Amino acid sequence: MARITGLEVQDIRFPTSRELDGSDAMNPDPDYSAAYVVLRTDDGPSGYGFTFTIGRGNDVQAAAIHALEPLVAGREVPEDATALAALSATLVGDSQLRWLGPEKGVAHMAVGAVVNAAWDLAARRAERPLWRFLAEMSPEQIAGLIDFRYLSDALTERDAVDILRAAEPGKAERIEKLLARGYPAYTTTPGWLGYSDAKLVRLAKQAVTDGFDMIKLKVGASLDDDLRRMRLAREAVGDGVRVAVDANQRWDVGAAIEWMTALAPFDPYWIEEPTSPDDVLGHAAIANALAPIKVATGEHVQNRVIFKQLLQANAISVLQLDASRVGGVNENVAILLLAAKFGVPVCPHAGGVGLCELVRHLAMFDYVAVSGSDTDRAVEWVDHLHEHFTDPALVRDGRYVTPTAPGFSAQMRDGTLTRFRFPDGPEWRQA
Amino acid sequence: MARITGLEVQDIRFPTSRELDGSDAMNPDPDYSAAYVVLRTDDGPSGYGFTFTIGRGNDVQAAAIHALEPLVAGREVPEDATALAALSATLVGDSQLRWLGPEKGVAHMAVGAVVNAAWDLAARRAERPLWRFLAEMSPEQIAGLIDFRYLSDALTERDAVDILRAAEPGKAERIEKLLARGYPAYTTTPGWLGYSDAKLVRLAKQAVTDGFDMIKLKVGASLDDDLRRMRLAREAVGDGVRVAVDANQRWDVGAAIEWMTALAPFDPYWIEEPTSPDDVLGHAAIANALAPIKVATGEHVQNRVIFKQLLQANAISVLQLDASRVGGVNENVAILLLAAKFGVPVCPHAGGVGLCELVRHLAMFDYVAVSGSDTDRAVEWVDHLHEHFTDPALVRDGRYVTPTAPGFSAQMRDGTLTRFRFPDGPEWRQA
Repeated sequence: MARITGLEVQDIRFPTSRELDGSDAMNPDPDYSAAYVVLRTDDGPSGYGFTFTIGRGNDVQAAAIHALEPLVAGREVPEDATALAALSATLVGDSQLRWLGPEKGVAHMAVGAVVNAAWDLAARRAERPLWRFLAEMSPEQIAGLIDFRYLSDALTERDAVDILRAAEPGKAERIEKLLARGYPAYTTTPGWLGYSDAKLVRLAKQAVTDGFDMIKLKVGASLDDDLRRMRLAREAVGDGVRVAVDANQRWDVGAAIEWMTALAPFDPYWIEEPTSPDDVLGHAAIANALAPIKVATGEHVQNRVIFKQLLQANAISVLQLDASRVGGVNENVAILLLAAKFGVPVCPHAGGVGLCELVRHLAMFDYVAVSGSDTDRAVEWVDHLHEHFTDPALVRDGRYVTPTAPGFSAQMRDGTLTRFRFPDGPEWRQA
Repeated sequence: MARITGLEVQDIRFPTSRELDGSDAMNPDPDYSAAYVVLRTDDGPSGYGFTFTIGRGNDVQAAAIHALEPLVAGREVPEDATALAALSATLVGDSQLRWLGPEKGVAHMAVGAVVNAAWDLAARRAERPLWRFLAEMSPEQIAGLIDFRYLSDALTERDAVDILRAAEPGKAERIEKLLARGYPAYTTTPGWLGYSDAKLVRLAKQAVTDGFDMIKLKVGASLDDDLRRMRLAREAVGDGVRVAVDANQRWDVGAAIEWMTALAPFDPYWIEEPTSPDDVLGHAAIANALAPIKVATGEHVQNRVIFKQLLQANAISVLQLDASRVGGVNENVAILLLAAKFGVPVCPHAGGVGLCELVRHLAMFDYVAVSGSDTDRAVEWVDHLHEHFTDPALVRDGRYVTPTAPGFSAQMRDGTLTRFRFPDGPEWRQA
């Protein structure tokens, strides 16, 4: 019987602000970072997880992860659904740490990093990629992973089991399809706000050549610039390719409606993060005013309670879960089931550091075992920083290649951990 | 021209779990704590602030406050509304730290501690208690303190100025009244869940003798216990005294409605925190089902965006702002103005460590300069830990005595800081 012996945390930062990769209307100069956690055991592989941040404060996030060590050190390594549910409940439910959220922000993201590391560990021991480890559980086991507190007015355990049972027919065929053809992707690579018009056009055309049928542009800093960039992008990709736009929370409700009405002639597919991620009623007002343009959000949605309300209020027609914002795999399973209950497609947020690596597993699990569909679904793809991972995400012909290595793909390469450690790794000592 | 030279943070914890003071349905064993911050200057007094937590994780909160030092060290000491608005905007708006919230949880509470310390500093230099320092600003200056981002669909700067102007007549008389008679209080001292029936009855009767016309009971762990305790409390205080109840987020929507329907015969004045503080639509459903029982929440409401929606959705009829949960005085001014716009009375959350000391200033500012009324308003009072503050809150005949010492009353005594420092102060070394 293996035990978790301890938890190590590292502050890893990449100097992405030097090239304006990742620049948008609210985040002009991010240094993509990870508060990186390793769960050590006394027998067998370690488990890996992280919280993605954009630079300053990554040390605070690391401290919050470190504060969870007493709750995991000495525990049996969780190997099955019951043990993984118990671990998540222990971490989310600590009666004193709970005050720091509850279930939001730094404290909750720390829980998510450790829960994800535990899932990585369990999937490695089961010798399964995470998406398959999850998909092979029974409906009752999967529903048992979820904390239904605050959900029962929208989703009960019985609802969850019913949804999962309804998805059982065809599971084996969908696994075969996934392994053969992968899962749809869309690309944000052309659209960063800091890129020149020429670079935008070049990358947009390249995206179509590379097989993508959807790209995304950052908007929200200047309407004149956005009108010009949207026109350039639309001309570059043609009418058959979807162009989504992303305001990164820049607007109030009224401004979102006005700005998007001005961009409407270029047929934007969705408007992402038009306003505060906390503003359920605001998103509902925006969605109502802008239909048929879809409203999407999720990368900053703090937990299942806000997602529940966004769905109840018809405030979003695309749900963008994030692997490292909420309390880890268990809460993301709840979010996938909420989306299925309300019939809203999930298009996970990715990019950053390692988010593509993680969320592909969740989307593929959704396809196999929850929604049973990939229609109107796609995982975001940003082609940077993958070289730092031991099981990097890969996109071919506009589709994510299905991962087959055991685990959750969160492990970084040893050389990366040495080189980008903040503030004393060589990459930062030089700067 | 004085400058802030640096920021010091200390992890201060009180072993309150030993006596079950503060025990409720979600927080069975809190050790009331403060991540305590001192802003040092090169000329004149220091400024004091803190985030209240309940034990574990107070070190994480301290780390988050420490991460803000580069944003304040070297700045001119803010002395007026413009400088205090600029400081708040700098702290809330840091483009990398923002990712850790945005504007919620550990990162946002850290901003609140530093902003409050800056207000303490400014009020000390102006030789005014904070409530008066604020109330003596012009409507335009007060409105200028607020970040209206994400608020404009409910409250514009123009709305704020109009509300503040409407409150100008009678300001001087209200200041005189406050100084002569203080501000209404209610007491939670009798109602902790860990107390015996005999202690509950004794303390409830004592509360009436002490001049309170409202008490509050913790509920939500056992319906049988709650029915018995509510009956005992009602018998102890009689029909003329209001008895509010507080579930500390224990229930889902359906459970809240059922449980409170069972308690309704004992005439509860409000139900506080029936469910998740994030659940705007859930609170609206509960309020709709339980009227005329009032629904109250706020101590865990993360920011002005959630308060805005609670008001827009008619989800609360009592707003319980908290001095150390949101981004400090500036955001609480926004919250007071939102409440005034929607005509909802503010009854601040207190207790904990130092919350009574702080929120009395905000309630008194509201009375003098915003709502202009103390009808249906009262500040929570819990009679413990006040001896640790240099300007302790005081209640007499059921009313808060109006503070007159300069500042925001956040400073702790030197002996307290030595004795209760975690983990190396004598109180913790012994344990």
